[in-house]
Amino acid sequence: MPISLLLSQSLRSVRAHTEALIAPLEPEDLCLQGMADASPPKWHLAHTTWFFETFVLQPHLPNHRACDPRWGYQFNSYYDAVGDRHPRPERGLLSRPPIRDVLSWRRDVDAALQLLLNDPPPDVLPLVELGLHHEQQHQELLLMDLLDAFHRQPLAPIYNQAADLTARTTSPQWLSCDGGLVEIGFEGSSFHFDNEAPCHRIWLEQFAFSSELVSVGDYLTFIHDGGYRRPDLWMSEGWALVQQGGWSAPRYWRPGELEFTLAGLQPLDPTAPVRHLSWFEADAYARWHGSRLPSEAEWEVACALHGDSVQHAHGVLWQWTSSPYRPYPGFSPAAGAIGEYNGKFMSSQMVLRGSSWLTPEGHARNTYRNFFPPASRWMASGLRLAR
Amino acid sequence: MPISLLLSQSLRSVRAHTEALIAPLEPEDLCLQGMADASPPKWHLAHTTWFFETFVLQPHLPNHRACDPRWGYQFNSYYDAVGDRHPRPERGLLSRPPIRDVLSWRRDVDAALQLLLNDPPPDVLPLVELGLHHEQQHQELLLMDLLDAFHRQPLAPIYNQAADLTARTTSPQWLSCDGGLVEIGFEGSSFHFDNEAPCHRIWLEQFAFSSELVSVGDYLTFIHDGGYRRPDLWMSEGWALVQQGGWSAPRYWRPGELEFTLAGLQPLDPTAPVRHLSWFEADAYARWHGSRLPSEAEWEVACALHGDSVQHAHGVLWQWTSSPYRPYPGFSPAAGAIGEYNGKFMSSQMVLRGSSWLTPEGHARNTYRNFFPPASRWMASGLRLAR
Amino acid sequence: MPISLLLSQSLRSVRAHTEALIAPLEPEDLCLQGMADASPPKWHLAHTTWFFETFVLQPHLPNHRACDPRWGYQFNSYYDAVGDRHPRPERGLLSRPPIRDVLSWRRDVDAALQLLLNDPPPDVLPLVELGLHHEQQHQELLLMDLLDAFHRQPLAPIYNQAADLTARTTSPQWLSCDGGLVEIGFEGSSFHFDNEAPCHRIWLEQFAFSSELVSVGDYLTFIHDGGYRRPDLWMSEGWALVQQGGWSAPRYWRPGELEFTLAGLQPLDPTAPVRHLSWFEADAYARWHGSRLPSEAEWEVACALHGDSVQHAHGVLWQWTSSPYRPYPGFSPAAGAIGEYNGKFMSSQMVLRGSSWLTPEGHARNTYRNFFPPASRWMASGLRLAR
Amino acid sequence: MPISLLLSQSLRSVRAHTEALIAPLEPEDLCLQGMADASPPKWHLAHTTWFFETFVLQPHLPNHRACDPRWGYQFNSYYDAVGDRHPRPERGLLSRPPIRDVLSWRRDVDAALQLLLNDPPPDVLPLVELGLHHEQQHQELLLMDLLDAFHRQPLAPIYNQAADLTARTTSPQWLSCDGGLVEIGFEGSSFHFDNEAPCHRIWLEQFAFSSELVSVGDYLTFIHDGGYRRPDLWMSEGWALVQQGGWSAPRYWRPGELEFTLAGLQPLDPTAPVRHLSWFEADAYARWHGSRLPSEAEWEVACALHGDSVQHAHGVLWQWTSSPYRPYPGFSPAAGAIGEYNGKFMSSQMVLRGSSWLTPEGHARNTYRNFFPPASRWMASGLRLAR
Repeated sequence: MPISLLLSQSLRSVRAHTEALIAPLEPEDLCLQGMADASPPKWHLAHTTWFFETFVLQPHLPNHRACDPRWGYQFNSYYDAVGDRHPRPERGLLSRPPIRDVLSWRRDVDAALQLLLNDPPPDVLPLVELGLHHEQQHQELLLMDLLDAFHRQPLAPIYNQAADLTARTTSPQWLSCDGGLVEIGFEGSSFHFDNEAPCHRIWLEQFAFSSELVSVGDYLTFIHDGGYRRPDLWMSEGWALVQQGGWSAPRYWRPGELEFTLAGLQPLDPTAPVRHLSWFEADAYARWHGSRLPSEAEWEVACALHGDSVQHAHGVLWQWTSSPYRPYPGFSPAAGAIGEYNGKFMSSQMVLRGSSWLTPEGHARNTYRNFFPPASRWMASGLRLAR
Repeated sequence: MPISLLLSQSLRSVRAHTEALIAPLEPEDLCLQGMADASPPKWHLAHTTWFFETFVLQPHLPNHRACDPRWGYQFNSYYDAVGDRHPRPERGLLSRPPIRDVLSWRRDVDAALQLLLNDPPPDVLPLVELGLHHEQQHQELLLMDLLDAFHRQPLAPIYNQAADLTARTTSPQWLSCDGGLVEIGFEGSSFHFDNEAPCHRIWLEQFAFSSELVSVGDYLTFIHDGGYRRPDLWMSEGWALVQQGGWSAPRYWRPGELEFTLAGLQPLDPTAPVRHLSWFEADAYARWHGSRLPSEAEWEVACALHGDSVQHAHGVLWQWTSSPYRPYPGFSPAAGAIGEYNGKFMSSQMVLRGSSWLTPEGHARNTYRNFFPPASRWMASGLRLAR
Repeated sequence: MPISLLLSQSLRSVRAHTEALIAPLEPEDLCLQGMADASPPKWHLAHTTWFFETFVLQPHLPNHRACDPRWGYQFNSYYDAVGDRHPRPERGLLSRPPIRDVLSWRRDVDAALQLLLNDPPPDVLPLVELGLHHEQQHQELLLMDLLDAFHRQPLAPIYNQAADLTARTTSPQWLSCDGGLVEIGFEGSSFHFDNEAPCHRIWLEQFAFSSELVSVGDYLTFIHDGGYRRPDLWMSEGWALVQQGGWSAPRYWRPGELEFTLAGLQPLDPTAPVRHLSWFEADAYARWHGSRLPSEAEWEVACALHGDSVQHAHGVLWQWTSSPYRPYPGFSPAAGAIGEYNGKFMSSQMVLRGSSWLTPEGHARNTYRNFFPPASRWMASGLRLAR
Repeated sequence: MPISLLLSQSLRSVRAHTEALIAPLEPEDLCLQGMADASPPKWHLAHTTWFFETFVLQPHLPNHRACDPRWGYQFNSYYDAVGDRHPRPERGLLSRPPIRDVLSWRRDVDAALQLLLNDPPPDVLPLVELGLHHEQQHQELLLMDLLDAFHRQPLAPIYNQAADLTARTTSPQWLSCDGGLVEIGFEGSSFHFDNEAPCHRIWLEQFAFSSELVSVGDYLTFIHDGGYRRPDLWMSEGWALVQQGGWSAPRYWRPGELEFTLAGLQPLDPTAPVRHLSWFEADAYARWHGSRLPSEAEWEVACALHGDSVQHAHGVLWQWTSSPYRPYPGFSPAAGAIGEYNGKFMSSQMVLRGSSWLTPEGHARNTYRNFFPPASRWMASGLRLAR
């Protein structure tokens, strides 16, 4: 099957999946934005459509008529090269266009993309593929942003009884890794984000890598041992957050050993992997444990080396690493506005590896570099130890 | 017709009118909160219902079963005596309960109120009446809050093509008033808010009162004469706002002599009364004009004295006065939580008199004391001069 | 003795007194600014000098050479008509010019003023007199600002063992006042601020006025009765401050029934008048007591009527009134920049009457209108009841 | 000469140098704190004394009587293990103790240290040495904090006519470096900070290293080419700072090609190295140039390899690297409170290498890791390119 036909099928399926995600919502939920870092569901639907229109249709489909420029202003996320945009903290104020107009726009853009894929110019296929991966990222963002917005409501809404993580941890083993001169990063011609390349050499000393994620039970021991009350366990920045924010547990834990989830309030299960932690909490836990977080290179090497012995490398929780998010040696961002996708965020953030139960199928890779500021904890983040 | 029957009819009509106000809205508009001072439409519908349930049904209808206490927490506005409440700036995050549940609650509360009015205990009638006037206040608030929320959107939504003010000014005359020892405040047994009483004596020197509101054309002259650039015209607080907020015109004016209204963007009409001014702007305009704002006593006395010669006393724009909002001599708030209705806001606010085109019919009185902080300008405020 | 000679003597004495106020200070105290509302001691010395130079010498003394314009920028307080100025919250950063240069400037300006007073042009005498009263105001401000700055230091510095208030309260009596059509405001040709005029008629109902200030002992009873925990006693704004600021006592009270004063930490004396209260606290206390604050007209009329029966009308504590600070009917500010002295502050503030133990001798008048925002409590404020 | 005698001499000289730094100051300068990140001169003198007393004298000199615990509270910088402390942004409010008491405390502590060094217990010598290096760091901080505080004053005070940087750049060459498996970090037993160890292996690809710092002339070209107006050159965080802060040049540049320095306002010299840049500016410049910043490993390796061919490696400006500040593999902080010295700051900061003209003699090392947040630019920072 030609690549354009495959893409055309993926397009249909990925785009439909995004819309399926809002099926359980009330109309009032569509504009819900709990904080500046998050975006409302409708905004995600519109932005991903804007992305295809702006970067695929406008440059490549002759006679394509773009949306109202005010829509472009509203649904541009952060592409400075494309022009000004609506302030991020005020996305929740965009009650208009209403959802039916956004869905109708999605229809039009989808039809135009299919038209373009009938006889695609050479540059178009990678752009469409990027658009699909971009949309998959927003599928995960939509759910984690919704969890944030729902947890702010006294009524503790349930998104979907079946939407919660079901994975449970096993007993952790230390997996030994020799280190030496190793290669990390993506190599090959299939899809990957620019930040995963180039493949390059790095020196690693011998290390041990935990076979399993840290569990709720492990984390409760940390808490009961005064984890949130001992400044010696924390980075200075993290300790300030603990005090200012009154942190005493992961973000969504509630009194009575409960956790707020996409399936509503649920009892904490000690065998579940602990989640919705900031990097500061992951780092403090590791210090308390007498271990440390793996670097992103260690994570990638250990997963390649030990394969299935690494439990829950993917599909459960993103795993904080000890690595600040910086460009690989020889990194060059894509040309033009698309180059803003990853490159301009390479400061003051930490890398997470793996993927989560919210990550769409087919979106995960061992070389994938996710990144968030060390204080963020509304994402599906967990941790795994090294030493 | 007995008073309870009249009230029962009013109840039906006022409650239905509130619901009619949201008919032109998209579902996503229902949770829209543009700023901390404003509330979303759905919240107004729920809060007015909570008011009836809390202050009428719960104390007076045996076996009435109140709403989920979390609803009470969400829809209490500011009654400390009733308990804790959801933070005001986060009312826009209350996507739940959805509108259908709020409307269903309204049905239930309305039915219970009608039941109670069939054979009302003596204390109930004034409370129901208060609830109706309270709901009418929220009808006006709903529209002015919506105007604020809509003006923040690039798409400049139209609420209703027919919703805008149509009144136009005439040529102003100075109406002479003798002053002397006069009485102001409400006297009698019909409905009034506690802050309008008691009727009391006050001494006024002779003054002149403008027969008309200040117009857009008048205000343009002030602007063209450097009104927003001359600190000598302003209170110090007001001048700070001008500079910090970059104020150069009334709140909803837009470049090109346009104004954003409930009917969308409209051309400025020089003969329309100028509106959406803060007290600081009204005060600066009056100083520039060589006149002053009337005190609230002057307003009340002049309207009583000159009757229809006072153009647009009601039904056009609330009119800023020179009077800080303070209790009348001998004021006593109602007992219990209801006493929080007006009394606790008697600091750092200024009185407006009259009523506006958004004020529901039957809600206006010459003794009515509306009040807002001097920096507020999202209300339907205008001004009238005295000297 | 001619008025110019009298003024010349006053000038010497008032100017010397200001400098005597900083004698007990360490050099590092001279730039101390505890908060944006307050100013450092050296700034007060420089600003009062700038006032004389700007409003007296520059317009009236030929060939007077003004200070470096950057000094003018630094030491202008709020006169927009005179030009831009250094941001108020950053006055504490002005370590230069050093004190010796400020003192030397004071010498030069004093000499120039004496020269001018040898043969004064007609307009000059009232300006010099205003400058003297202005400097006296800053003498009080200097001390209250210093108290604020010292109370922020762990070492609790003592300004002067003899600087604290020594007055003690007597048993309060209700003094009866008939009311009726009365006159308030300053009448005559001697010195007064523009805001005290014009003298005008006002109607007062009969009232009773307390002969004494509220005492520490009285206020302790209020506290022990839950005064800071009962929202029903407070204006809404005030209750928000109580909660945000964790207020549970007057500003300078410390655990262990101590109070921080200009004489350092001192035990609370139940018979002392309670002080350093905000208007919100004064208002809440009066409500709790079942009384109310007097209006400023009541204060002025009662003091005129009852003379010495009113204990501590002056020289102890400024007394909060129920009156917002607004212009008297017919008020007109002085022409030019001097008109900014009082007029532009007539919003969002409350009037205090009387004077305090920090007020310089000869500065008090029954018609004097002091004013502060209702949340301020670093001044020498107390309260007296009416009913 | 025994080590304790050498230390005793160093102590005398380093401690005296700190006090010499304040000789040019006015007394009012001693409490000057321009921003929360900076500290007043007197505070630096007191804090370094507190450091010796707390970590050397109290644990090791029997019968030593420590300062007033409130002094400890005031002069603890960030050691959580030692107890609570005065809020950092309010150090400028600590007018007391006055300088003479601080200097007298310095005398007492110095005498006690000399006494201890007469017959030092084994653990003491490294602590005294750490205290000396700590004090040298504060000597540099004192001057850069002072520059910040002085630049906020309209009078643009001169600290010392001879205090400015005099180094000038030469024509840059690319120095070639082979890379491969190299070692970085401190090895040996002489003094170094814990964050410089352990020495460890790292893999470097071949790279080129500029022989010279970037000059003012180079940077002017960047500015004239729109460097501060092109978002594509900046990290997203950095671009936000450019816009919010209105950045258009290095921190201390002034209109008219002037720069504010410790010697007052000086003309910009195109051959001088550009300084007082944030990491974001250094990074943007490098991107504009088509080069990049060196990693800290590259910096250390290139300086070792090329020796004197690297111009101005030390004694001119700290040089931003591309490396986030993180622990070396195998890093372990010192035991106890001293372990807070470096380890807890290893997040959200970038490494600078080299040293500056403000760095005290004998304080620089090739392995020295200085660190600041990427937005900071009040330090003596410059940059050098790699590719």
